[in-house]
Amino acid sequence: MGFKVAIVGATGAVGVEFMKVLERRNFPVDELVLLASKRSAGTTLDFKGQPHTVTELTHDSFAGCHLALFSAGAKISREYRESCVKAGCLMVDNSSAFRMEEGVPLVVPEVNPQDAKRHKGVIANPNCTTIIALLALNPLHQAMPIRRVVAATYQAASGAGHAAMEELKDSTRAYLDGKPFTPHVLPHPYAFNLFPHNSAMLDNGYCEEEMKLAKESVKILHDPSVRITGTCVRVPVLRTHAEALNIEFVRELSVEKAYELLRKAPGVTVLEDRAKNRWAMPTDVAGQDNVFVGRIRKDHSQPNTLDVWVVGDQLLKGAALNAVQCAEVALL
Amino acid sequence: MGFKVAIVGATGAVGVEFMKVLERRNFPVDELVLLASKRSAGTTLDFKGQPHTVTELTHDSFAGCHLALFSAGAKISREYRESCVKAGCLMVDNSSAFRMEEGVPLVVPEVNPQDAKRHKGVIANPNCTTIIALLALNPLHQAMPIRRVVAATYQAASGAGHAAMEELKDSTRAYLDGKPFTPHVLPHPYAFNLFPHNSAMLDNGYCEEEMKLAKESVKILHDPSVRITGTCVRVPVLRTHAEALNIEFVRELSVEKAYELLRKAPGVTVLEDRAKNRWAMPTDVAGQDNVFVGRIRKDHSQPNTLDVWVVGDQLLKGAALNAVQCAEVALL
Repeated sequence: MGFKVAIVGATGAVGVEFMKVLERRNFPVDELVLLASKRSAGTTLDFKGQPHTVTELTHDSFAGCHLALFSAGAKISREYRESCVKAGCLMVDNSSAFRMEEGVPLVVPEVNPQDAKRHKGVIANPNCTTIIALLALNPLHQAMPIRRVVAATYQAASGAGHAAMEELKDSTRAYLDGKPFTPHVLPHPYAFNLFPHNSAMLDNGYCEEEMKLAKESVKILHDPSVRITGTCVRVPVLRTHAEALNIEFVRELSVEKAYELLRKAPGVTVLEDRAKNRWAMPTDVAGQDNVFVGRIRKDHSQPNTLDVWVVGDQLLKGAALNAVQCAEVALL
Repeated sequence: MGFKVAIVGATGAVGVEFMKVLERRNFPVDELVLLASKRSAGTTLDFKGQPHTVTELTHDSFAGCHLALFSAGAKISREYRESCVKAGCLMVDNSSAFRMEEGVPLVVPEVNPQDAKRHKGVIANPNCTTIIALLALNPLHQAMPIRRVVAATYQAASGAGHAAMEELKDSTRAYLDGKPFTPHVLPHPYAFNLFPHNSAMLDNGYCEEEMKLAKESVKILHDPSVRITGTCVRVPVLRTHAEALNIEFVRELSVEKAYELLRKAPGVTVLEDRAKNRWAMPTDVAGQDNVFVGRIRKDHSQPNTLDVWVVGDQLLKGAALNAVQCAEVALL
């Protein structure tokens, strides 16, 4: 006995990954409903070797569905939440719409799976940067409480969707060919360029992406004592985020212990060859489920502090995989 | 009355910039001697509209020279230091060979110009990442002592030389064309990829680039109380470094005061449009002499701490410009 599963935003960068993840993990799908805007309706996408036609999202789309995986932006999530939940369909939402809403669990299954079971119709999938950081931070925090993290991120185009990935490629080709290119997806030139994250600026000088990392982490860890400050930067990489985390603990955690904890942590792979100065990088991690970590070193500038290098596929653990894992915890 | 100036490594990425900077700043050059390896000898390069032929570097190359600007790697600098100094020629060295040597001044003219005048034949040009960071850090440090900096860098191909810049372009074109590419300059794939800095690994887990930032800064500032920890990362950008600096002061320095200090700091441009989330980026800064700063914000995770975003042209202020400025202080 399987489930009738809807994907909202089926033609997007994350939507396509939802299908691949459901198939690869053998999620018990009896029927798959692909939903998108009117513009994308009629597109055909393969699932388990069978063509499926994308239909237009309407308030009746969720009839008989058990699970809807949403990745079509916060506006669509807000607009269709009620129709989805009223139809008795669990909404796992990849947007930021409900993440900080009281009563909506915000879940990274390796960190707080118990929260997924307490849902009232909606489970929020955290921000990609938050998920990837927490895969590395939580195992350390459980062994030795974290006081403060200074994070700097190296974020891929995919966080801004499929069109941004195409714009990165198109603008780079134009640059190499000496041709002009006007960006229309991202606000700045992207070819061989980078810029602080283009999410909305807040009054405190941080952008939304940076405050998501701080606030969502506290909610997921259920621990307001963990303070995270970050600088989020969009770099010309296609689908994999990297993060340099400087982590201050309340007391000393040794480098050896940190490696031991991360080597056995679920969803984490330690990849490095220290003698060769070889650490995880986007070309290693694109298409991989696990978050890759390494370069753990003792900070020479103050006690009780470690540096960790973390790399994760933004579309998988940062989005589609984590959402499907949330559904598995809640439904299976 | 001008100077006879030699450029060692004239055909390299920095060598070419030395010529442009000398010309643009009207440095009083009576005669220019372009030196390189045997392989590059015979190449013709323009200076002030006149072709100059590159000759092979030998121990006799410095006869009659007043100034030699070196950028041909630490090995060449060590090999030719004695010949240069014995010829009575001031060596301004862009390599890491003598930076930490007692008695060799390590100079950023906006920070410690007095040191340049105390040279004994050699002035060392600091690491590019260090120079760019210090242009922003020093004006703040002079107003309120810095206790600790957590730096994350976004470093361009140019730091690894002209061949690395070409490899970034060639490998990216191959990627876009779906063709294989084997890197031969950098140790890892570079197209739409990034990796921790490829300088030698040290026993403490940092790479050389990261420890240069820490140690050179202390020498330049003459202040061992400033502790800097960094994660240095090579990103697919051509010639401009960016740095996210998290700066803890001994007491509070307001955001407003920090802006005021940096707006009047020599060699620094504040470029930002906060309402539009628009900050300096490599496409703004490539080819610019100044280091660009902005995004100054109060760290919400602990007191007395500011974040600053810094972007500088690696070939100019990070290398050629700073070296010529050192020569100006010492000779003019």
